[in-house]
Amino acid sequence: MLEYIDKKYKPGKDELVAEYHAEPAYNVSMEQACEQIAGESSIGTWTDICTMNEKIAKELKPHVFSIDGNEIKIAYPAELFEAGNMPQIYSAIAGNIFGMGILKNLRLQDISFPKSIVKSFDGPAFGIDGVRRILKIKKRPLVGTIVKPKVGLNPKQHAAVCYEAWFGGLDIVKDDENLTSMVFNKFEDRITETLKMKEKVEIETGQKKAYMPNVTAETNEMLRRAQYVKKIGGTYAMVDILTVGWSGLQTLRKANLGLVIHAHRAMHAALTANPNHGISMLALAKTARLIGVDQLHIGAIVGKMKGAVAEVKNIGEDIEHKMIKGSKKQHVLEQDWNGIKPVFPVCSGGLHPGKVAAVIEAIGSNVIIQAGGGVHGHPDGTRYGAKAMMQAVDAAVHGIELKKYAERFIELNKALKKWPG
Amino acid sequence: MLEYIDKKYKPGKDELVAEYHAEPAYNVSMEQACEQIAGESSIGTWTDICTMNEKIAKELKPHVFSIDGNEIKIAYPAELFEAGNMPQIYSAIAGNIFGMGILKNLRLQDISFPKSIVKSFDGPAFGIDGVRRILKIKKRPLVGTIVKPKVGLNPKQHAAVCYEAWFGGLDIVKDDENLTSMVFNKFEDRITETLKMKEKVEIETGQKKAYMPNVTAETNEMLRRAQYVKKIGGTYAMVDILTVGWSGLQTLRKANLGLVIHAHRAMHAALTANPNHGISMLALAKTARLIGVDQLHIGAIVGKMKGAVAEVKNIGEDIEHKMIKGSKKQHVLEQDWNGIKPVFPVCSGGLHPGKVAAVIEAIGSNVIIQAGGGVHGHPDGTRYGAKAMMQAVDAAVHGIELKKYAERFIELNKALKKWPG
Repeated sequence: MLEYIDKKYKPGKDELVAEYHAEPAYNVSMEQACEQIAGESSIGTWTDICTMNEKIAKELKPHVFSIDGNEIKIAYPAELFEAGNMPQIYSAIAGNIFGMGILKNLRLQDISFPKSIVKSFDGPAFGIDGVRRILKIKKRPLVGTIVKPKVGLNPKQHAAVCYEAWFGGLDIVKDDENLTSMVFNKFEDRITETLKMKEKVEIETGQKKAYMPNVTAETNEMLRRAQYVKKIGGTYAMVDILTVGWSGLQTLRKANLGLVIHAHRAMHAALTANPNHGISMLALAKTARLIGVDQLHIGAIVGKMKGAVAEVKNIGEDIEHKMIKGSKKQHVLEQDWNGIKPVFPVCSGGLHPGKVAAVIEAIGSNVIIQAGGGVHGHPDGTRYGAKAMMQAVDAAVHGIELKKYAERFIELNKALKKWPG
Repeated sequence: MLEYIDKKYKPGKDELVAEYHAEPAYNVSMEQACEQIAGESSIGTWTDICTMNEKIAKELKPHVFSIDGNEIKIAYPAELFEAGNMPQIYSAIAGNIFGMGILKNLRLQDISFPKSIVKSFDGPAFGIDGVRRILKIKKRPLVGTIVKPKVGLNPKQHAAVCYEAWFGGLDIVKDDENLTSMVFNKFEDRITETLKMKEKVEIETGQKKAYMPNVTAETNEMLRRAQYVKKIGGTYAMVDILTVGWSGLQTLRKANLGLVIHAHRAMHAALTANPNHGISMLALAKTARLIGVDQLHIGAIVGKMKGAVAEVKNIGEDIEHKMIKGSKKQHVLEQDWNGIKPVFPVCSGGLHPGKVAAVIEAIGSNVIIQAGGGVHGHPDGTRYGAKAMMQAVDAAVHGIELKKYAERFIELNKALKKWPG
């Protein structure tokens, strides 16, 4: 057997480091588990084989250099990976190992990508600065909504809801994750109608607005839809990155259509929700940044979805900053992003005006705050729900207590009465 | 609030039925949980909204028609889905719902696709019969190996290992899941060298052989690689379906290159391993059949990976048969495959000659048995490991006790001595 554990080993500059939480099955030692994880994710198998040779064993062998309770770190030589091929990287470090019989649970906590791999991906085309330039908003959080109901409206109804939201003051309106091209709402019709309304409202308000149409589909169909958006003057493509998958996402990014890519993370929690198994949202978020999405859902902190404050903050920092120091306690690895642009974090899911301040406090002003039900559920409808959201953001940005601010604004006042929580 | 629970409801013929295992969070009732799951996966959100209308509520509303302890069944009108768009279907029924704060755990157990959705996908181009025709093997299990070490060999070394395995009698040799185009083993070079060896060994043995090159990559690069395989006379494309993702997999199938698609499932266990959360392998396997892979890894039953016998058998049946009756106890739903071809189940992971009989007993003869370490780990090397595997399959097919058979064959004898278990 090759021996992969070497606690004195120091990872080289061109190694990929993965941190795992590993729980061995009954009667399996942590050391045995580490050996199997390192082997199965690289060059090993369950038995000695005649086809191994010294050169491979020496040059491609990974090293388990840290075992701290159930938390382990493995350094993998970059040659184990195909540069620019994210599915291959996942097939190695997030592949078979999750299903090994010798493990009760395994979670990929974080991935630190070496420079050679970072440089083989595109990263965001726009990033935070690029998005702010398009919308001409320098410092404050961007504010958006999701058209509701999630599916069911026809293109004209959909565009009308967008108009109301924009007119009420919101910057962004997006499709929901399960709305693509439906029998009652064809993609091209919806985009055409909605972009017409965007043009109208931009003239009426003098503000730049964004519409994020969901192009999620088989790869070529997805590209055709994104190209259609570009052709008729849209600025965004929204995509469900996990149900589409890494290959399709890379293809969308590489098509370089000049559209901001907004990444929705539907299905992530099938992987991320169990703290002892699967893949962390942090690892998925870093992967999405590397491939090159411009905006990414990271959780709402105070909304309807799971996601602890510390975890969401860590994700926010890792996709926004140039250099990540790493934190042993938080299971965050060092990462030099080597010039890859920062991603705009999106907080969404069960938000309403009463929750805006908490989001900004946790994430800062470089955030896109989205409320769906929290806008369209306003007692006076979408337009006034939009106003209430903008008022709540104003209050938070200027450090004014929300209830006090609501004394001056009827829309905010009504929203807080409906959703006091 | 819309009310989705209706235990008297009978799903219509054109509805998609999903079965979930749902565990509500503390202080949440099962009924509340069901309402939220049904809403979030279709047309609802967390609060009442002004944009809902009667037509949508009536025509697109899903029904929770069965609640049995923690197991629930929901019928969704087909109009909630875009036909032929698997990412969209997953974004709905396997999307946000996994992360809702009102749930402790949620697992998608099975999906029953209605005819309109089944007909919108391609299914396998070859299926079991097509693969058997190519290899000219009528009834017995197909037997294969994975080149080991997983990565590290150069193209000539790789091709030499394949030659040994084929010459020893195996039908199939495949790349490993993390071997794509490496600095030390470029895709084109490997495929060229290996297909040369395939031609040579086919002439020498008079048998048809298969090589399954791993084309896993960004979509366009994946297509280029598959086209290269086709161009120089290959018959297969192997792909890591989960790290590539549904969009890329659909694109590969739709390219219709005339190559058998072999589906490796690396990363599945991040989703499937926890019996209370995530997505079942059964659901993933049915999805892969619908999209159109010809061969699919379903577990080894007796190998190094997790996967209970009953579960693997259910998966095997669901991807092989024309009509699935459904079993409440096994959480298997009815499925009329409406002419979609059957998929060849692949058992792999920690197998060796001593475990062959158990696999055939569980799955039947329509199975591809693969052993990596169980071939190359043979004391006399790959060629003799291949012989031992074929001998073990012969014994099982003819109902001869393995130890007795091993008295006549030195290769099998030596294998059983190394791996008595």
